[in-house]
Amino acid sequence: MVNTKSLVPDGLEQALVTDLYQLTMAAAYHRHAMSGRASFELFVRRLPARRGFLVAAGLEQAVHYLEHLRFAPRDLDYLRSLPGLRSQPAAFFDALASLKFTGDLEAVPEGTAVFPNEPILRVTAPLIEAQIVETFLLAAVNFQTLIATKAARVAGAAQGRPCYDFGLRRAHGPGAGHLAARASFIGGCAGTSNVWAARELGIPCVGTMAHAWVMAHAEEAEAFRRFAAVFPDGTTLLIDTYDTLAGARLAAAIPGVAAVRLDSGDLLALSKEVRRILDAAGARPVKIVASGDLNEYKIASLLAAGAPIDAFGVGTELVTSADAPALGGVYKLVAQEVGGQWVDRAKDSPDKATYPGRKQVYRRFDGGSYRGDTIGSAEESLPGEALLAPVMRGGRRLCDPPDLRAVQERARQDVSRLPSGVRSTGEPVKYPVAFSETLDARRRALKAGRA
Amino acid sequence: MVNTKSLVPDGLEQALVTDLYQLTMAAAYHRHAMSGRASFELFVRRLPARRGFLVAAGLEQAVHYLEHLRFAPRDLDYLRSLPGLRSQPAAFFDALASLKFTGDLEAVPEGTAVFPNEPILRVTAPLIEAQIVETFLLAAVNFQTLIATKAARVAGAAQGRPCYDFGLRRAHGPGAGHLAARASFIGGCAGTSNVWAARELGIPCVGTMAHAWVMAHAEEAEAFRRFAAVFPDGTTLLIDTYDTLAGARLAAAIPGVAAVRLDSGDLLALSKEVRRILDAAGARPVKIVASGDLNEYKIASLLAAGAPIDAFGVGTELVTSADAPALGGVYKLVAQEVGGQWVDRAKDSPDKATYPGRKQVYRRFDGGSYRGDTIGSAEESLPGEALLAPVMRGGRRLCDPPDLRAVQERARQDVSRLPSGVRSTGEPVKYPVAFSETLDARRRALKAGRA
Repeated sequence: MVNTKSLVPDGLEQALVTDLYQLTMAAAYHRHAMSGRASFELFVRRLPARRGFLVAAGLEQAVHYLEHLRFAPRDLDYLRSLPGLRSQPAAFFDALASLKFTGDLEAVPEGTAVFPNEPILRVTAPLIEAQIVETFLLAAVNFQTLIATKAARVAGAAQGRPCYDFGLRRAHGPGAGHLAARASFIGGCAGTSNVWAARELGIPCVGTMAHAWVMAHAEEAEAFRRFAAVFPDGTTLLIDTYDTLAGARLAAAIPGVAAVRLDSGDLLALSKEVRRILDAAGARPVKIVASGDLNEYKIASLLAAGAPIDAFGVGTELVTSADAPALGGVYKLVAQEVGGQWVDRAKDSPDKATYPGRKQVYRRFDGGSYRGDTIGSAEESLPGEALLAPVMRGGRRLCDPPDLRAVQERARQDVSRLPSGVRSTGEPVKYPVAFSETLDARRRALKAGRA
Repeated sequence: MVNTKSLVPDGLEQALVTDLYQLTMAAAYHRHAMSGRASFELFVRRLPARRGFLVAAGLEQAVHYLEHLRFAPRDLDYLRSLPGLRSQPAAFFDALASLKFTGDLEAVPEGTAVFPNEPILRVTAPLIEAQIVETFLLAAVNFQTLIATKAARVAGAAQGRPCYDFGLRRAHGPGAGHLAARASFIGGCAGTSNVWAARELGIPCVGTMAHAWVMAHAEEAEAFRRFAAVFPDGTTLLIDTYDTLAGARLAAAIPGVAAVRLDSGDLLALSKEVRRILDAAGARPVKIVASGDLNEYKIASLLAAGAPIDAFGVGTELVTSADAPALGGVYKLVAQEVGGQWVDRAKDSPDKATYPGRKQVYRRFDGGSYRGDTIGSAEESLPGEALLAPVMRGGRRLCDPPDLRAVQERARQDVSRLPSGVRSTGEPVKYPVAFSETLDARRRALKAGRA
């Protein structure tokens, strides 16, 4: 049902959606016949500001990319024209022409709560294949994880009231708007105003009226009457084009109105006044929808102060994760086959050191709550649920993508199982994550070997 | 040369890349036979934090969208299935089936410096056409203008040293990475690491080596030698995988190295030490490239402290405009044809009031510097250069898209003509922009008529 093809700029040419250095390194791997397999893991080093957890998302786009990775003749023509690659031998371009992703992928399911240093996915494949997919995998997972996390915070603040993605116009272009609609739904939004995303993803599409409709009439009352007449089954009237309280009185008098929307001004005071106006007019079932630069902090503050708001439209702040607009996921070599033997690999730059070896994450669950994770070696067995599971083998996916509603439900359940302090939108408590003794020992051994 | 088709998720189905309320309003306009023309203007209400100016970008994507806007049969099937639209008459869907954009577009050229309240573009078309294009036009112009502006700040801080877009992996998905590469180039970047974007846009593609290459070897020295052997015409070695200064000494000993890259640690101290090491080894022509969470503030501070850095790779902060990750452009009805007469329209919400009528921006230039702008009525003539020019008439574009290098040059010249305080990256001076007396009078008249 989900048209993942359309989530990349051009299905046939996505091999070039990468950084040039992946291809210069590929040329060097090829020249030196470095054809053994390697394992790379994708993880986040630190949580963005004020976040206590992440909700993993973007895996489906990653899998689709890996399944369809091909260099078209036109791609190769372009690469041959580049100064850095012009002098490479024909054999290298022949290798690219026949390149497919033939490797394995393990990953945590989309919708899983994850923490720093925990692998979200691991690629094991011939070195060139594993290398050149880095950029796309990061672009897919970083952004959707960022937005699914933001949406989980927004939905948490709304305490069960529906929140909708209204952000397409402020997203980082139409493609970002689409991916944001998807990730927002995973994180707990109830739907989107983005028609294309709603259709492609099979999720609810919402929206009724903008200020332009009201402005296109000489009188607000006439604008409301005429709009309601077109949608007799119930509509939402936007009441803040001129004077919100006057707009509320007009709306209360119109039969068949399901809700009014406030998009500006003091939403706390206005929502209370508007509720009184609606109730006094006997328009009790008419709901109040609020929008206008909302985020989890403002929603929490409105509800704590008793604002009688029934639903929220969240745009800019949701689809850009405005208070933390990037996720610094990285993709690092952790093991490599050299002469038929797997050897550990790690990086040791200041503040950017990594742990060697293929890993697994073990999550302990007790009394309805997650108690802590241990990042262990993939070869050891530790207490708790193992989060990483096989997704692809030999370049083929092992099962169909899950329904997006199931992913949303997984995220809802996973976040609800986090200790409440970890879920705080303010200064969250740190969720306990430790490395296993085995991994620590392997890291020390690798460092000693290099020193 | 530029494949703008590929900049939207799917060339054939882009009509649905919109908010649902555009289509519910379209149904209501259709039902009430509101078929007269209307003018909408796209502008920004306030500058993002710390910005003194904006660099307009995204017009080409907007024009391409308007030229190709069509509802496919599959789109209409989906719309007919939606609760809000299900009960609409067949005539409405017939109207959508034959809908094309038949209107006029005026705009400031891409690369023009613009300020709050100045129209970046104006659409004049039958009401339904002018309405439903709102969301896409905003998505196109908001994001690229945001990034072109950020890039102009980054390039300004680098004082002529080349800056490159390295941000694809942290962009808001692959589509955002592509548009960010384009807008970064307009704002003054010298190229991008994004291969697909470089090809589609015809701009320089850059990149050499990541940490994985070094990590895939037992010895850093071997990794460097083997990489340089593949690129004898000159390459850039990444020297911070383990110990940056040791890496510099190794790199200095390798013939044919064009540059070294620093990606972590104290870039000021390290660049000075590395310069000394390279110079002592007689490797004077070897340049130093710096990357790693850079932005205009860090670049300015590094150069002010005398960091001997020759070029910058800028990623996350550039492609997400991290310190101001959204631009709040809006698209507002300003005039409408009613019974054959054009009447002024404006919105009067708290903090969101707009000026009525079609506008023109007049910019005064004297002594090599822009002196200030007046936003006047499109019908009046004021001193200065008029910035908005016709781009489409009757749904057809009037001339071919300009070469991206010409757009970049326009941006460079336009920004260089701003008073220096306006260009400051800290707390910029406000550039003088005033409304004409004619516009002020029309606004008062409209408000008086409504009161």
